[in-house]
Amino acid sequence: MRNSRRSCVDGFIVMDVMETARAAEAEGRHIVHMEIGQPGTGAPAGARAALAEALEAGPLGYTVGLGQPELRARIAQLYAEWYGVSLDPGRVVVTAGASGAFILAFSALFDNGARVGLGTPCYPSYRQILTAMGLDPVSLPTGLETRYQPVPDQVTEDLDGLIVASPANPTGTMLDREAMAALIEACTARGVSLISDEIYHGLHHDERAVSALELTDEIYVINSFSKYFSMTGWRIGWMVVPEDHVRVVERLAQNLFICAPHASQVAALAALECREELEGHKDVYARNRSVLLAALQGIGLTRFAPPDGGFYIYADVSDWTTDSLALSEEILREAGVAVTPGLDFDPDRGGSFLRLSYAGPEAEIAVGAERLAAFFKARRPD
Amino acid sequence: MRNSRRSCVDGFIVMDVMETARAAEAEGRHIVHMEIGQPGTGAPAGARAALAEALEAGPLGYTVGLGQPELRARIAQLYAEWYGVSLDPGRVVVTAGASGAFILAFSALFDNGARVGLGTPCYPSYRQILTAMGLDPVSLPTGLETRYQPVPDQVTEDLDGLIVASPANPTGTMLDREAMAALIEACTARGVSLISDEIYHGLHHDERAVSALELTDEIYVINSFSKYFSMTGWRIGWMVVPEDHVRVVERLAQNLFICAPHASQVAALAALECREELEGHKDVYARNRSVLLAALQGIGLTRFAPPDGGFYIYADVSDWTTDSLALSEEILREAGVAVTPGLDFDPDRGGSFLRLSYAGPEAEIAVGAERLAAFFKARRPD
Repeated sequence: MRNSRRSCVDGFIVMDVMETARAAEAEGRHIVHMEIGQPGTGAPAGARAALAEALEAGPLGYTVGLGQPELRARIAQLYAEWYGVSLDPGRVVVTAGASGAFILAFSALFDNGARVGLGTPCYPSYRQILTAMGLDPVSLPTGLETRYQPVPDQVTEDLDGLIVASPANPTGTMLDREAMAALIEACTARGVSLISDEIYHGLHHDERAVSALELTDEIYVINSFSKYFSMTGWRIGWMVVPEDHVRVVERLAQNLFICAPHASQVAALAALECREELEGHKDVYARNRSVLLAALQGIGLTRFAPPDGGFYIYADVSDWTTDSLALSEEILREAGVAVTPGLDFDPDRGGSFLRLSYAGPEAEIAVGAERLAAFFKARRPD
Repeated sequence: MRNSRRSCVDGFIVMDVMETARAAEAEGRHIVHMEIGQPGTGAPAGARAALAEALEAGPLGYTVGLGQPELRARIAQLYAEWYGVSLDPGRVVVTAGASGAFILAFSALFDNGARVGLGTPCYPSYRQILTAMGLDPVSLPTGLETRYQPVPDQVTEDLDGLIVASPANPTGTMLDREAMAALIEACTARGVSLISDEIYHGLHHDERAVSALELTDEIYVINSFSKYFSMTGWRIGWMVVPEDHVRVVERLAQNLFICAPHASQVAALAALECREELEGHKDVYARNRSVLLAALQGIGLTRFAPPDGGFYIYADVSDWTTDSLALSEEILREAGVAVTPGLDFDPDRGGSFLRLSYAGPEAEIAVGAERLAAFFKARRPD
């Protein structure tokens, strides 16, 4: 049996870092995890309690393909709460995480060989999912001057689609209302289907993030319970689609997934009411961010776009190296801090970047910041 | 925004039946559900208890992409218990239901436009998932004379892949060792990648089902916790792949799904030890099957392949109609029994067939069998 050509996707480089970290921990070393893109916290207590109750109340069988009506309605209400947007619950599709939403969106919008633009650096799986589905990811290189976000000039007519993320992974930068509006206008003018990845919404630092749904209904918006709601392993998210796409997406969802995990739907509905606990996590991220920014400032590692949201910093380390994989291995070995080399997010230029996650517990991130400071001070470029 | 061509998949016709049934129940009518392909029971008590404990033990974050090592090992052990096959746990991939396994298998094996054979009638989503992924489903019509299973002569060199199911949905028929071996040989000889859907394993009536893994390692075998293990809504299943495909499938799984739902992995591991409860369900299916077979015999509705496993009967009703959708509506309206028209499983010939599911509670299926007998007796063809 042969594998298909489209199955030849890159592995995650960070997985090798994680494996080395795991081995070091097995030998008794203490490692600070700044490589992982998930909260150190679990699902909120209210979500766990709701599921514990549901477990005894009756079988958790298949739900309808678009998700439980009460969960869709409650998600729609979140758009009123967060953005003042009145959203028809009928446009909300409950998905198996943002991952499931991408598979649905790409099936619903693109045919074989379609060209889909990605501002790089970006979440690596955009590229790999597109490839695995027989589509053609197109890198749109971005830099510090545009805060690592794509701009309208890059939206050319030879593209079929564009994915934007705000706050972005790995940079944490956001598109403000004006920048988002300009991209929407360019996509509309050039017939490019726009997908807005909003999975870090709720995790902003000063200004709140703008949802593309504040500006247009002609868009696929993807979100998840993994980040703000602290439910990574539950594989539960959602997508908002244009009204006239609902039936098509429903059929795809029924066939491709049958439904999102029922237990996770129960937990997610309750999580939407656990705002106090979740805002507490956000306060931790804010303090972690301050500690880390101060440490980076102290060592002169200052070339990164200010992270507006999410829980990452994407730092330009080109003064130290153009081999960020080797550097990350060195940091792990010598400083006991696991970080992600930029190559996962930008195969071309990522050798000069590291992504630092500050999603972990406060005490750990503080130790990690100290260790990074000590490591880089000993190697100060001149 | 336009939808893609490949998103134009058929809806499930049974969904309309279910909606009509729901409306009837809302008006206070009692409806027997013989349209639904899921057990009336929920996850076994041991699975629920394990999850309740895990909920309080720590965050259920991402697991590794291939699934938790202890679950993969326990699934491998099932192959020793059920088939006497010694299986390397490294070849087991934990998936988001059989649905997730199909997406992974199709990505791993087939490029755009690949032709994948399906013995029809078959599970409708094979066709739709293939279409949604830019692949080309090819119907291989089967009949009562081959017990609705494809035969080696239908495995031609212009196919890239073949999906077989044993026990099959909608017919419940199985491929015996000889028939399975002949299909494997034909696929090997003609370079056709074979996928064996074994999600109804464990639910056989007399002879146990043969796993393709008893005969070859050069195959993708797909299974699920939805049927025998009674965990439909949990979206948890698995796939066994050739050893040299593991790395490719791991990368696809990491990118397409990140991981299968963590809570479901915990519950599934415990479900594997709940054999007594699950064998009890199987006894119910056996009694339901006997009751239903007797009722069908009594009304002269006897043209179907004896269901060896699973919990369906696919009955030829061509003496009554070639419009099985209208017939199913009539049965629902007049007899209060929801059944599935064959068109979902075979768009060409399904107008002459009904699928009857006997997965429901014993008392319900007994009532359903009586109602069907009364309905068809009043319409006996002559």
